[in-house]
Amino acid sequence: MNNNPIGLFDSGVGGLTVLRSLQEVLPQENYIYLGDTARLPYGTKSKETIIRYALQCTDKLMEHNLKLLVMACNTVSSVALPALKEKYPHMDIIGVVEPGAQAACIASQKGHIAIIGTESTIRGKAYEHAILAINKHAKIVAKPSPLFVAMAEEGLIEGPLVEGIAAHYLDEIFKNTNAANTPDTLVLGCTHFPLFKKSIQNVVGNTVTLVDSAQTTAKAVQQLLKDKNHLRDSHDSQGSMRFLTTDDIAKFSQIGESFLGIPLKNNTVELVDL
Amino acid sequence: MNNNPIGLFDSGVGGLTVLRSLQEVLPQENYIYLGDTARLPYGTKSKETIIRYALQCTDKLMEHNLKLLVMACNTVSSVALPALKEKYPHMDIIGVVEPGAQAACIASQKGHIAIIGTESTIRGKAYEHAILAINKHAKIVAKPSPLFVAMAEEGLIEGPLVEGIAAHYLDEIFKNTNAANTPDTLVLGCTHFPLFKKSIQNVVGNTVTLVDSAQTTAKAVQQLLKDKNHLRDSHDSQGSMRFLTTDDIAKFSQIGESFLGIPLKNNTVELVDL
Repeated sequence: MNNNPIGLFDSGVGGLTVLRSLQEVLPQENYIYLGDTARLPYGTKSKETIIRYALQCTDKLMEHNLKLLVMACNTVSSVALPALKEKYPHMDIIGVVEPGAQAACIASQKGHIAIIGTESTIRGKAYEHAILAINKHAKIVAKPSPLFVAMAEEGLIEGPLVEGIAAHYLDEIFKNTNAANTPDTLVLGCTHFPLFKKSIQNVVGNTVTLVDSAQTTAKAVQQLLKDKNHLRDSHDSQGSMRFLTTDDIAKFSQIGESFLGIPLKNNTVELVDL
Repeated sequence: MNNNPIGLFDSGVGGLTVLRSLQEVLPQENYIYLGDTARLPYGTKSKETIIRYALQCTDKLMEHNLKLLVMACNTVSSVALPALKEKYPHMDIIGVVEPGAQAACIASQKGHIAIIGTESTIRGKAYEHAILAINKHAKIVAKPSPLFVAMAEEGLIEGPLVEGIAAHYLDEIFKNTNAANTPDTLVLGCTHFPLFKKSIQNVVGNTVTLVDSAQTTAKAVQQLLKDKNHLRDSHDSQGSMRFLTTDDIAKFSQIGESFLGIPLKNNTVELVDL
């Protein structure tokens, strides 16, 4: 048994979709989530800057005596995971890319998989490597689609304009004249993108399976804690949630709710300076 | 005469449009420009965070013995100018909002002016105050249009999708059934937005005058330096340009060129850590 909290970290509020899935699977655990909203987005920044910011955020979370750290951000998972594991060799760190790649390989009948994400996630090629490690015959196409991040932050998540932007990114992959050359699975490789599921599905069609890594990441966390016998002693049932943010608390709570799916009280959110 | 450099500061590369106008009016001056690309955008962040970052950037620029500081960013000019003037009471600091408001008042025949900008710029109401200080009868409508910033950074500046997004923001202001209730002038209240002039003009129609503050800011700087007799001794004609950035140098140079309008050499750009 280990009653220490599970730490989660994202550049903003997108990683709350991962916390939501974790809470469904492991409701008895205590969670502490850090969103670096003052410096978001990470996905358009350089590898060096992403690693520097990710290390600062991890240092802050490590003050809370974590039993496990979840990089609830595709960009950080793609770019900074080796640097974090090097700095904290004794900490269990789980990213969202490997669980997402596993989900994609299970979902894809023909092993033809498309990936969308931020510029940095796509440039880092972590999804390609993770998918090919599972299925070396997989055929992969990857495309950065950064506007979705700004749209999510603006609360613009459906309607003709959103579908127009989805088509702008996805038509060249999915509106192929030869259906045999079209992927059957699309990885939503950014924690913001599940908000656009409906619009994206309308654009790519119902034959394409959309995959995100929130649920599979939650299952990977559950498995690891079980294997190590580190699940929380759950006599007092429901665990707690705490939030750290680097920018406005009220905005974090307000936008965060749509990602977390349950009310997010201002008094559980603390402002931190990195 | 004063041969010290003029400092410019923006959250990213948008302020290079102001530098471009300054260079046209005052080619003999030396310029040093800081773009805080690691933490951009500022326009979606809280007032407190914008002020904190603006003070850090200004501190860094002040190391270069400036004769004048230009806040080449609408968000910073709207939100942080009083804090900067308080910290540096003896430095001449010029923002882009007052020159933009002047340009709008001159352009508008009927004193009915629309403003678009980032969330923080619009929320700060600095344009409204500056316009009303010039024309107290002005009728003003303001609308945040943050997606334009992400689009500019992606290099997506014209075409049907851009016009669709422009219409999303502007139709409710300009597609009025009663033409008498429609503004005749639109302030592009973000240094990124002049890139979209063509698309925005297509959406609002040719009867609307688009105004940005780059040129009027340059003229305000010229006037101030003349009044104080602080123009550079111009015997050696062309001045220099130096750039500081907080993220990747190559990306700054590459994207910066489209804003600056002339080649931006990597060896004039220096990485700084704030």
